[in-house]
Amino acid sequence: MPHFKLTLAYDGAPFVGWQRQAEGTSIQGIVEEALAALDGREVVVTGASRTDAGVHALGQVAGCELNRDVDGHTVIRALNARLPPTVRVLQAIEVARSFHARFDATAKTYRYRIWNHEVLGPFERATVWHVPVPPLDATAMDAAARSLEGRHDFAAFQATGAPTASTERVVFASRVFIEASRLESDRSVVVYEVRGEGFLRHMVRTIVGTLVDVGRGRQPAESVREVLQSGDRSRVGRTAPAAGLFLVRVDYE
Amino acid sequence: MPHFKLTLAYDGAPFVGWQRQAEGTSIQGIVEEALAALDGREVVVTGASRTDAGVHALGQVAGCELNRDVDGHTVIRALNARLPPTVRVLQAIEVARSFHARFDATAKTYRYRIWNHEVLGPFERATVWHVPVPPLDATAMDAAARSLEGRHDFAAFQATGAPTASTERVVFASRVFIEASRLESDRSVVVYEVRGEGFLRHMVRTIVGTLVDVGRGRQPAESVREVLQSGDRSRVGRTAPAAGLFLVRVDYE
Repeated sequence: MPHFKLTLAYDGAPFVGWQRQAEGTSIQGIVEEALAALDGREVVVTGASRTDAGVHALGQVAGCELNRDVDGHTVIRALNARLPPTVRVLQAIEVARSFHARFDATAKTYRYRIWNHEVLGPFERATVWHVPVPPLDATAMDAAARSLEGRHDFAAFQATGAPTASTERVVFASRVFIEASRLESDRSVVVYEVRGEGFLRHMVRTIVGTLVDVGRGRQPAESVREVLQSGDRSRVGRTAPAAGLFLVRVDYE
Repeated sequence: MPHFKLTLAYDGAPFVGWQRQAEGTSIQGIVEEALAALDGREVVVTGASRTDAGVHALGQVAGCELNRDVDGHTVIRALNARLPPTVRVLQAIEVARSFHARFDATAKTYRYRIWNHEVLGPFERATVWHVPVPPLDATAMDAAARSLEGRHDFAAFQATGAPTASTERVVFASRVFIEASRLESDRSVVVYEVRGEGFLRHMVRTIVGTLVDVGRGRQPAESVREVLQSGDRSRVGRTAPAAGLFLVRVDYE
């Protein structure tokens, strides 16, 4: 009964999210179907992060147990042969029986991409939030982003109606920088990258909405720390759209 | 009667190519329709390059004449409001009546992208040629690419059944390099970039097919110069698929 740690990349656009839903196609669902075909019985996968509808992944991690005695390379090939090209298994490593993709994760890294030009390029349109004008002040956004680093109560940045036992989280790094567009060489993308122990529901997208308010000059960089301390959901920016968000990496001990 | 020089980017996948065809949607066709709606009469656009079906553009140039007295910014907005998101007008500059997008071009730059990993990433799949194995020798490919620089008879690299008056062309720069993938940070893309006065039909894609043979070790880097000198179409590699090719830029005096 080998246990595997799978690393997956996916384009979230066509899916209802990672987790199985009553309706629509989930990434978990199609991965479980592909595993069932390989293993000849039902297989359950546990994802490190329940990415929402439309959110992408470059390095989601999922754990599963198989009946068949197969190696990692066979798992990669068998799954990729069955999955649509929007979902790819990048790695399959045999791990200890005790491995739990969600509970054993020590950190997650998310990246959010903002296209800050009037004309949205044809090649980036499915993987960015289009904020056409004005030119964002990335320096102010970065100062605001850094003020969120550390252990804080992030209640203000939580999705409404998503109560959790504790809203305290540790953010190891929270930065804004400029990235050259992959193809459109005279264009650049404003990127927010955050690494933390764990995140509240919609926390990254709510932070991004607030950072864009700062970048637009609607509120000063210092105010973000005040919003955080106030715990007041009504003071944060809009929730940024799912299309710009990527789960980049999940770390384990 | 203002004349405009339009700069366009497009994802070539859904189109039959730049040029109007008896069947299917061409980029020229939909740009002409959008211009007709703006100008209230039929408008003809002339493209600098007749990109084939599936070939992309980051900087195609097209010329047109309008009846209405409009400025460049209005042209950009009006066209982008009508065109699908796969086609974007990046610039519209008023030019002299004598401007001809094709005949006045002094150089064109093309880029070709090769995904050289076993697993094809979900975000790059529509804009690369997937050559999974073996790892390509980019140094040998670059040496072969450089041997094509200069004025040569490129008859060997011409599409079969595409006779032209002269098959001599000047290539200013012809290089292979490694580019970091936009998103998948541990992955890289092998890129061929070529700038020349003009190109024969399928010339870039036939060169790429030959360079990949070199990268695979099927023929030495030096042989490419010999193939060029032989003028023998049967000695070149396969024509690389359209999806990896981009018209990057068109230069004018």
